[in-house]
Formats: sequence, structure tokens, C-alpha cells
Amino acid sequence: MRHDNRRPDALRPVRITRHFTRHAEGSVLVEFGETRVLCTASVEENVPSFLRGKGQGWLTAEYGMLPRSTHTRSAREAARGKQSGRTQEIQRLIGRSLRAVVDLAALGERQIIIDCDVLQADGGTRTAAITGACVAVCDAIRGLVAAGTIAHDPMRDMVAAVSVGIVGGEPVLDLDYVEDSSCETDMNIVMTGTGGIIEVQGTAEGAPFSRAELDRLLGLAEQGIARLVELQNAALAED
Amino acid sequence: MRHDNRRPDALRPVRITRHFTRHAEGSVLVEFGETRVLCTASVEENVPSFLRGKGQGWLTAEYGMLPRSTHTRSAREAARGKQSGRTQEIQRLIGRSLRAVVDLAALGERQIIIDCDVLQADGGTRTAAITGACVAVCDAIRGLVAAGTIAHDPMRDMVAAVSVGIVGGEPVLDLDYVEDSSCETDMNIVMTGTGGIIEVQGTAEGAPFSRAELDRLLGLAEQGIARLVELQNAALAED
Amino acid sequence: MRHDNRRPDALRPVRITRHFTRHAEGSVLVEFGETRVLCTASVEENVPSFLRGKGQGWLTAEYGMLPRSTHTRSAREAARGKQSGRTQEIQRLIGRSLRAVVDLAALGERQIIIDCDVLQADGGTRTAAITGACVAVCDAIRGLVAAGTIAHDPMRDMVAAVSVGIVGGEPVLDLDYVEDSSCETDMNIVMTGTGGIIEVQGTAEGAPFSRAELDRLLGLAEQGIARLVELQNAALAED
Amino acid sequence: MRHDNRRPDALRPVRITRHFTRHAEGSVLVEFGETRVLCTASVEENVPSFLRGKGQGWLTAEYGMLPRSTHTRSAREAARGKQSGRTQEIQRLIGRSLRAVVDLAALGERQIIIDCDVLQADGGTRTAAITGACVAVCDAIRGLVAAGTIAHDPMRDMVAAVSVGIVGGEPVLDLDYVEDSSCETDMNIVMTGTGGIIEVQGTAEGAPFSRAELDRLLGLAEQGIARLVELQNAALAED
Amino acid sequence: MRHDNRRPDALRPVRITRHFTRHAEGSVLVEFGETRVLCTASVEENVPSFLRGKGQGWLTAEYGMLPRSTHTRSAREAARGKQSGRTQEIQRLIGRSLRAVVDLAALGERQIIIDCDVLQADGGTRTAAITGACVAVCDAIRGLVAAGTIAHDPMRDMVAAVSVGIVGGEPVLDLDYVEDSSCETDMNIVMTGTGGIIEVQGTAEGAPFSRAELDRLLGLAEQGIARLVELQNAALAED
Amino acid sequence: MRHDNRRPDALRPVRITRHFTRHAEGSVLVEFGETRVLCTASVEENVPSFLRGKGQGWLTAEYGMLPRSTHTRSAREAARGKQSGRTQEIQRLIGRSLRAVVDLAALGERQIIIDCDVLQADGGTRTAAITGACVAVCDAIRGLVAAGTIAHDPMRDMVAAVSVGIVGGEPVLDLDYVEDSSCETDMNIVMTGTGGIIEVQGTAEGAPFSRAELDRLLGLAEQGIARLVELQNAALAED
Repeated sequence: MRHDNRRPDALRPVRITRHFTRHAEGSVLVEFGETRVLCTASVEENVPSFLRGKGQGWLTAEYGMLPRSTHTRSAREAARGKQSGRTQEIQRLIGRSLRAVVDLAALGERQIIIDCDVLQADGGTRTAAITGACVAVCDAIRGLVAAGTIAHDPMRDMVAAVSVGIVGGEPVLDLDYVEDSSCETDMNIVMTGTGGIIEVQGTAEGAPFSRAELDRLLGLAEQGIARLVELQNAALAED
Repeated sequence: MRHDNRRPDALRPVRITRHFTRHAEGSVLVEFGETRVLCTASVEENVPSFLRGKGQGWLTAEYGMLPRSTHTRSAREAARGKQSGRTQEIQRLIGRSLRAVVDLAALGERQIIIDCDVLQADGGTRTAAITGACVAVCDAIRGLVAAGTIAHDPMRDMVAAVSVGIVGGEPVLDLDYVEDSSCETDMNIVMTGTGGIIEVQGTAEGAPFSRAELDRLLGLAEQGIARLVELQNAALAED
Repeated sequence: MRHDNRRPDALRPVRITRHFTRHAEGSVLVEFGETRVLCTASVEENVPSFLRGKGQGWLTAEYGMLPRSTHTRSAREAARGKQSGRTQEIQRLIGRSLRAVVDLAALGERQIIIDCDVLQADGGTRTAAITGACVAVCDAIRGLVAAGTIAHDPMRDMVAAVSVGIVGGEPVLDLDYVEDSSCETDMNIVMTGTGGIIEVQGTAEGAPFSRAELDRLLGLAEQGIARLVELQNAALAED
Repeated sequence: MRHDNRRPDALRPVRITRHFTRHAEGSVLVEFGETRVLCTASVEENVPSFLRGKGQGWLTAEYGMLPRSTHTRSAREAARGKQSGRTQEIQRLIGRSLRAVVDLAALGERQIIIDCDVLQADGGTRTAAITGACVAVCDAIRGLVAAGTIAHDPMRDMVAAVSVGIVGGEPVLDLDYVEDSSCETDMNIVMTGTGGIIEVQGTAEGAPFSRAELDRLLGLAEQGIARLVELQNAALAED
Repeated sequence: MRHDNRRPDALRPVRITRHFTRHAEGSVLVEFGETRVLCTASVEENVPSFLRGKGQGWLTAEYGMLPRSTHTRSAREAARGKQSGRTQEIQRLIGRSLRAVVDLAALGERQIIIDCDVLQADGGTRTAAITGACVAVCDAIRGLVAAGTIAHDPMRDMVAAVSVGIVGGEPVLDLDYVEDSSCETDMNIVMTGTGGIIEVQGTAEGAPFSRAELDRLLGLAEQGIARLVELQNAALAED
Repeated sequence: MRHDNRRPDALRPVRITRHFTRHAEGSVLVEFGETRVLCTASVEENVPSFLRGKGQGWLTAEYGMLPRSTHTRSAREAARGKQSGRTQEIQRLIGRSLRAVVDLAALGERQIIIDCDVLQADGGTRTAAITGACVAVCDAIRGLVAAGTIAHDPMRDMVAAVSVGIVGGEPVLDLDYVEDSSCETDMNIVMTGTGGIIEVQGTAEGAPFSRAELDRLLGLAEQGIARLVELQNAALAED
């Protein structure tokens, strides 16, 4: 049993609240336990200059943590005048993950900008962000389809993400901050609703890990993501 | 009657939710109608270098808007690499307003950092921020007093803020975005719980305004702030 | 009597020197006692992108202090790589104040850029800057009218500014640095030549102030600004 | 057969030239085919402030591409004033990979700074950089041991890296630029000399990939890295 | 005869006004014809960190142009967020030139910061700046000697600078903006009061120049600088 | 004799290796003794905006030092977020020097961007950079002529550069780092293949220098540059 009484293969309680704020075309508050991320999807009728006139769309993502979403306050990136390497890595990952399931040609010459802002952090903010962003993008696209702006739905599949890691020698699913701080190996997996792998990022924090350990972690992740996709679909089935 | 059926001297529905997030020493979600600002107060056991060794504390504030808190998405300041002039003006105002009611010597050599992050904007974000930040600071200070870190409460008074303006020739209280965009004169007033004025910032957006108009606006603000302080005290009386 | 033997309602000696430098369309050295600000107005035959093709003009302002205009040297903002929050606040105020008296449609699709550079600071640099900038803008506009570039004068009124404050319990007009550093309340007022209020910015530096004090300060400012407008007009009547 | 006549499991010709420049404590030019990266290791007798007085060392890495190392010139990051997200991701990866095999306590309170600068790019610059940096760090540490500065060798293992990917449906090892631009899946693997996994980063560029494909890619990488470690050791055995 | 009726070897009218502003330890307005530069020298009781504890002083310089000192407005460097290459070149030149005549050991562990701000530009701003800065530094040092802060005068010599160039095939002294814009060769020379050369910077703007032309230009400069040093000494002899 | 047994008028061994990297239109590794600079010339089919539509080309240069090209590691400019004043001075000098020998009208509406990156520094990096860049530009232009993109060769002359200085009272040619660190006077001279002077930059590091010393230094430089141009031509005669 884990420090919060979860079984090794258990997710934290997950909540997906749609329409959390009112201006964005998609707005989702996603909670993985005490981790809370506000994911908005904004539709803009333009594309970056490298795509202008190419007849296809774009999707990009930005990520930020509120200064006091963390245990001790972190400096505000806007005040420091630059985004950290970690922030840039995460927002690039979110963008890649979502682009993998959106048919950009079918989107037409417009872009979806995802903003993932962490209101409260307790481990797994990037995986929660991808999971929530997918729902926000679905809502934004529904709006475009409903308005007749685009003819058919460019979402090819769902996408969700989860962390897995080895804590105290034991592979576990969906690490919280306490586990994340003490794990030997930390891996983030992004997969589609139909079980395809989009991204695998595993890092040995202490000792290197073996192929066998990697295999067990991938197994845990597959199962966790399947459950997350069920929850995404359930949320989207409401209203 | 106003476009949302308020009387000229009516505030929007105000909600003050304490303990909105869990890490900060004070964490308040303040809502003025559809405007929602998360205000946290973080206590740090250090002071800026210009105060080191002077035996007194400090209080400062930062402000930000989530990119899609607004009707159309605004660029993320962390990505642009600088805070706008507007942002800096507002965070300086919040800091000054709170310092006016905190006895910095009694706080001891530590600082309180306020973060006001706008989750959803509908006019009056800076006045909501000041009003919510005051409650967050009260919570942070209660913690310090309860822990015996400081001997007596350094809060000298409450502080709250409201906007007033002339819309369609009529002085009104607590403008929302629709009114703010079309008003002739816009004023933000910061006052203490005992009715002292801390800050007056009035700007003619169109035609200049007269002393008589200024007087009527000040009267509206006095009454609105008195009501806001009642709501702050009611929120603080819970739990 | 004040530390420099002025009566509470007396301005410092004011000097307005037009044509101080030769390249700018308007160039004014304004002196409020020992405060000296060089205000230039530059006419450019373009507008910011958000106004392109709209058939109206624009006016904007920038402000800076020479590093050793102050008692102790301040860091050069160009070397630090960013303008301070105070600088941005002041340049936004100058721009707003002047736009309030210029008919931007009558200006045509061109812009006036005001530069206010403080050569020597002794309190009241922003109010001197507004007062001098107004004269510089008048000169720039006279040039446009004289050249037949614009048909009629877009200046709707004069604009001037002054500071007032409570020093040693006493409301006084046009504070110098010594008074500014020790005042309890500090207010900057911007008004038109016909007595309309454009901007009121009052801040309690120590204890909050009352409505009665605010009223007395506004009275002092009205009278001071009336005198400043006389001096502006006298300067413009020369040559 | 691949476009350059390699078998799927073949590395490009690898060359490791030690002592390529003369000032650095370790200086290695590593070539993976036409990819050429200069890796230097600099020893400094200080540590970042967060480690001061903790009695342990640090190792960090920076990465850059010469503007015309690429097919078309890329903007110089020093001139643009910021490092791209890609650059930051790569330099964080290099630092993590090397820290995984260096005993920082045994290094003592000093740091090793790795600089990886790409002179010519043809795919796989980050994996070449890690492979070359390991040799440069070995040389720098040999110098410390030879000088008696540290008592015993803090290198716990070798570390090397290689890319694998699926090109035209076929898993291949060590992709060059042509393959990298057209691959469906791209993965970078970092492993130790004894076969432990330090980092796995796999990305679906087009369609998602399956567990079976992932397994085949990992197998290719294991074998490629074993060969790279042999080449590192051979290079270190000279002189 | 030149376009302004000067002989080839004639300086423009030079004016050196000491005590132009009141806060700086040395404050000089220097005019070379229509070029006007405000040069201040500020004394600070500290040194840059690389000199701390070394028992010697430092002297450094900063340079800026007011945005409308030029014929058409130039962007404000503080607003652009960086100083141009030209600005940095000039401020490095001013610093080097003055350090060449100041005995930094005799100055003691303090620094003199020179600020040269161009109020009006008409060619030769850097040479005017060096010439004026020398007088400002003399004034600042006189103050230190008078106060007994330093025992003996660390000024080893005077320093002044002038431009020379080939205009229409003719070598001329002290080019104004019209000549500077059309010259074939432009050279700035910095020399001491006793005729030693401190800096020579010559650039062919169009065709390369010959040794013979270089020699004639150096001759003109020697004579011009000798005259400038007389004017500096005359200014310093007043009061 | 000098510390490395050179005669006062001797260059260090010079090597010019063309086609050092494969992507750039011109790519030259130039070595002046232990100083090694990689110079690439990139052709782009566009011009800066100030030249658009003017029917002429442009040539510009950038310069950088790899962090560990120097004896002790220097901070990476891309990581610091700005280029130093020294870097900007040098890249401006390289650009001016090359523009002096290229007929920009004959180049047509395209630009050549030179990148000079120092792999190893031992004094004289800027003079080596100019000397190598000239050869790289020749190669780039040969490519344009060979492809028929431009009708005739826009190179009007060769250009090369060398440093001279007074070391231990003796004028010497082509200073290495040891001499450069201890010299009294340091001068960089840029000349054409036909002996015209393009740039002279001399600085007294310690005591001022005399006209006679300047003359001797210029003589040394003339002879050194004549030899460098022979070496450039020999390199270009190969293949």
C-alpha cells in the first residue's frame, strides 16, 4: 500500500469539470487528486506565419504554474522575464501530444491555442494538463462544428497521459508529489484512446533502470490511460 | 436601471472563498460578479536586501491575468518576456494598498508576498484583487499569530477597493466590463474599514469631469467599500 | 511658511523655454524650481498598427530620467534592459493626459510622440512633464497648421498638472523633493485650461486621508493649474 | 538497405578525437557520420549557490548549434537574446545523463561544466553530444585524479546515447538528417556501459506506435549503445 | 571653404559650461557647434566586484542619446530593452579614454561613473563627450581632494578628442553631421594634453585611404586637440 | 626575439582550410598559430527591410566565442541573453571590413551573412576572423557566379587584417595572447590586397603612444597584411 493508501495500480481521484470559465471556447478544470490544472482552448482565425496560405490549421500550447501553486512560492516567470527550461519542455510536450490526434488539414486555416495553468500542484501536472487539454479541445471543436465553421470533426482519437515510476522498489501509477520527490525512476506516458503510444519519457532519477522495469511501468501506464480516457468520455457525454 | 438590472449604487454579487488552494498561508478566491481573482498570501522568512537587518517586514504584490481570462486571448506575459505597464501599475497599487494597513515593524523581519491571478475577467479585477488580498493577508497573519511567530496582530485596519464611473451620464458603482468599456470617467478608490482614503485614481476617458461629479463618485465608493468590508469580515468570521 | 519660504498655495518659480533643441517639431525646457524636464514633440507620418487605415491620429509619450538627474545616481534603464514600473506609469499618464485635449481625428493619420527627459529632479517631474509637453505639442501642431498639412487646430484645450500634498499636517501646492519625501499624502492632478479634471491620483503615504483633506487638496490644485495655464499661454504668445 | 547503404542496425562511422582544443580540461570532437559536435568539460572550483557548503560537486551542460551548422542558416541564439526550448531541453538532457554516472560527493565541492557545440549537423546531435561529453568528462576527471585533487575516480560507469526510429515502416538505428525528417517515430535512448537505462524519450511524429515497435526500437538501441561504449573505451585507451 | 564657412583646420565654436546640473559631483554641458552633450561624473564609494579589496578605484562610462536629439527620432533604448552596438562601442571608448589619464590606485577604492547624454546631435558626439567628461571628472576629483577624501590628485593629464575626415577629397577637422554623412574617411582621435595618443579609430566609409592621407588627418587632429585642451583648462580656471 | 622565438615582424604560422564544414556556401577554418576561427558565409535570397526593393545586396557578420575557447571558461552569450559590447564591436568591424571590398550593387538583392566562431583563442581572433571571412566570401561568390546567379564577380579586392603592438618597448606583428595581455599599445589594422587602409584601431593600454611609434606599427602591419593576402590567394588557387 502507498502512503495515501492507494494500490500500486490506482489513479488518484480524477475530476474533469467542463465550462470552468466562460470566455474560452473550451475550458476544463482537471484534478488528479490535489493537482488542479485549468486548461483552456482558444480558437483564433489565423495561423502562425510559417503556415499562412497552406490551407491547414495549427495547435499550440502554453503552460504556467501560479507562483503559489507549489509548496513554497516559485518566482513568477512573467516577472523574471523568461520561461524556465522545464516550462518550455512541458508546453512543447502538450502541443505535440494534442497535434498527434488532431487532423490539422480538417481544422482549416485557424489555430487552437491551449493554455494550461496550474492552480495547485501535487505531482503530475503535465499529465493532468494533457488529459484536461484534450477535453477542452474537444469542446472547442464541437463549437466549430456546431457553428458550421468546419464540416467534420478533426479529432482522430482521444489522448491522455499519466506518470508511472518506481517508488521504494515498487512500480506505481500516477505519482503524487511525495512519491515523485522520492522515486528512483519517473516516466510520463502519452497514449491515444485506442492504445497507441504518442510519447514516452522516462528518466532514472537515481540508479539506472532495466528493460524489465520499463516493461512493468509501461503496463501500468496503459491501464491508467485507458481509465483516464473513460473518464474523459464520460465528462464529454454530459450536457 | 443598468444593463444587468442593478441600481446605480449596487455592487455585483460578491463572494469570498477562503482556503481556495492549500499550499499558501492565505488563499482566497474573490468574485465580483463574473470577475474571479485568486489571491494568495505567502509568508517568507526573509526581506528584500534594502530592508535586511532593519528589524521590519515587507509586503509586496504581483498580479497577472491568465491568457484566456479575457474575452479574446491576451498574450502570456511570461512568454512575451515582460510584464505590461498596466500589470506593473496594478501590482504596485495592490502592494501600496495593503502596506497602508499592515504595521511592518510588528510583522518582524519577514515578508508577505501577495499573488493576484485573474481566472476570469469582467471589469474591476484590480479592486477585487485588493479586496480579496486583504482577506488572504489576514489569514496568513492569523497563522503567524497562532504559531506564536509574532506577538500581536500587525493588521491596523481592513482595506477594500471598488470602481466607480460615469456611464451614460450617470454615476454608478462597481462597473462590469460592458460598463467599463463605454464609461466617460473611471475611478478606482481604495479605503480602509474605518473610512480613510488610501488611494484615489480617477481618469477621464472621454470629456473631462467636474468637481461635482467627482464628489458624487466618491460618495458612491464610500458606501460600496463599507459594504465590501462587511463582507470581508463576515468571511473571516467563518470557521 | 514652508522650508523654502513659499506660502502653502504658492508654485515654485516656473520657466517655460520653447525651442530648447532644434530638431524636434516642438521642444520645451520646463522648470518647476530646480526640476528641469526637456519635453519634445515629434511628428511622424505613420500610426501604430492598431490604427492603420482608420483615418485618425495618435499621440503617445515616453519618459526617462538621466541617471544623475537625481541626488544619488540611479541605474540607466537602457543598461538595465527594462523600464521600471514607475517609468511606465508616468509615461502612460503623460500620454493619456495629452490625448484628452487633442482631437485625434482632426490630427489625421499621423502621430505625435512626446519625449520627456528629466535633466534635473527635485520633485514633481511628472507634473512638470505634462505641463511642458502640452506646450511642445502646441508648437508641433502650429507647424503642421502653418505648413497646411492639417486644416484646423486639433488642440481642444490646454492641459497642465501639479502636485499637492499634506506636509506636516498642512495642505501645500507643488511639492519639492524635500516635501515629497516627508509628506503624508501625495496627489497629482491633471486639469484642462477650462477647469475640467482629467486625472486625479492621490496616495496616502502614511495615514489614510479624509474627504475633507481631499477637498482642500483639490482646491489648491485647481488654483495652481489655473496659474500654470496662464504661464503656458504666455510662453506660447512669444514670437 | 537504407538510403546511405547502411543496414538497419548499423551505426554511422563514429570518430572520437580527444584533445581537440587545448584550453579545456577535457575536449572531444565526436563525429556520428557527418554530425560533428565539439564537447568540452571545464572544471571550476566552485559550485552553484544551492550547493555551497554541502561538500558535494555538480555537473551541468550547455548546448548550442553554430548558426550555419545546419542546411539553412539558423538565427544565432546569442543575437536573438534567448535560447530556444529545443536547446534548453537538450542541455537539460545532457546534464541529467552525465550526472547519472558521476558520484557528485566524490567529486568534492567543484563543478564540471560541459559545453556541446555543434559544428555540423546531420541528425543525432544530442546523442553524439552525450557520447562525446562522457569522454570529455573522463579526461577532465583523469586530470583531477592525476593532480591529486580528488582521491578516487567519481565515474561510476560510462554513458552513451543513440537515436532509433521507424523509417518507412522499418526500425533503424542512428538516424541521419534525411531519415530523421521522414521518420514516423523518433526515440533517443541514453544507457550506461553496463546496460542500465538512464533516459528514454520516444515521440510519434506521425501515427502512434505500438508496444511491439517500442520493444524492437529498444533492442536496436541497446546494441548500438554497447558498440558506442566500446568506441569510447577505445578512445580513452589511447595515449 | 567648408559648407559652414570654416577653414579645413578649424574647430566649430566650443563651449564648456561647468555646474550645468546640481546633483552630480561633476556636471558639464559641452557644445561643439550644435552638438550638445551633458556629461556628469558621479562618485560612488564602492567598486565593481572584480576590484573589491584590491585597494584601487575604477572609472566607467555610459552614453545615451535622447530620442529626439537627432534629425529624425530614434527609438529610446530603454524602451527597446537594449543598448545598440554603437552605444556600447562609444561608452567603452569613453571609459578607456578617461582611465588612461586617471591614476586608479591614487583614486582609492571608489569609482567614478561618467554619464554622457546627448541633448542635441550634429556630428562628433563621442568626441565632444570625451572632451566634456574630462572636465566633469576634474571637478569630481577636485571635490574629493577638497574634502580630504583623497590625498593627492589622481589626474595624470588632460584628455580630449576630435574627429577628422576626408570630405570632398579634402582633410578637415571636427566634422558636423552634414560632413560626416558625406565623408570618405572618418577618424576619431583621443589624445592627452601632452600630445600622447590614446586612441585612433579610422574607418574608410567609401574607398580605402592611404598612409599619406592618414598622416595628414593625424596632423589636423593633433592641432585640434591641443586647442581643445586649452579650452578645457580655461574652463577649469574659472571660479 | 619574442617569447615564442618569432622575429618582431613575423606572423605566426597561418593555415587557411577551405570547405571545413559542408552546408555553408563558404566555410573556412583560419588558424593564426593557436587561434582557430571557423568562418562561414551564407547566401540568403533576401535583404534587410531597409534595403528591400533597392536593387542592391547586403553583407553582415556575427561573431562568437565558444565558451571554452578561452583559458578560463567564459559565460555563453546565448545563456546570458545578450551579446557583450566586445562581441558587438567585433562583428560590426568584420561586417564593415568586408563591405568595403564587395560591390553590393553587383551582388543583387541578396545578402551574405558571415559567421565567425572562435573554436580556440590565443590572441588576434578578430583579425583572423576578417582574414578567413574574406576567403569564405570569395567561395560563396564563386558559387553564385558559377551558378549564373550573378553575372560578374562583385569582389573588388581582397581584405585581410592583423594586429600590431608595442611589447616590452618593441613594435611587434601579430600578437598572441601572452603578448596581448602585456602590451603597452594594441592596434588592429584592416587593409585591402592593393594596400589601401580600411580600418585602423589603436589603443594605448598603458602609457599613451607617439606618432613615431604609430608609424612603425603601421609599417609592420602593411607588410604582415601583404603576406596574409598572398596566403589567401594561395588557398583560393587550390582546387
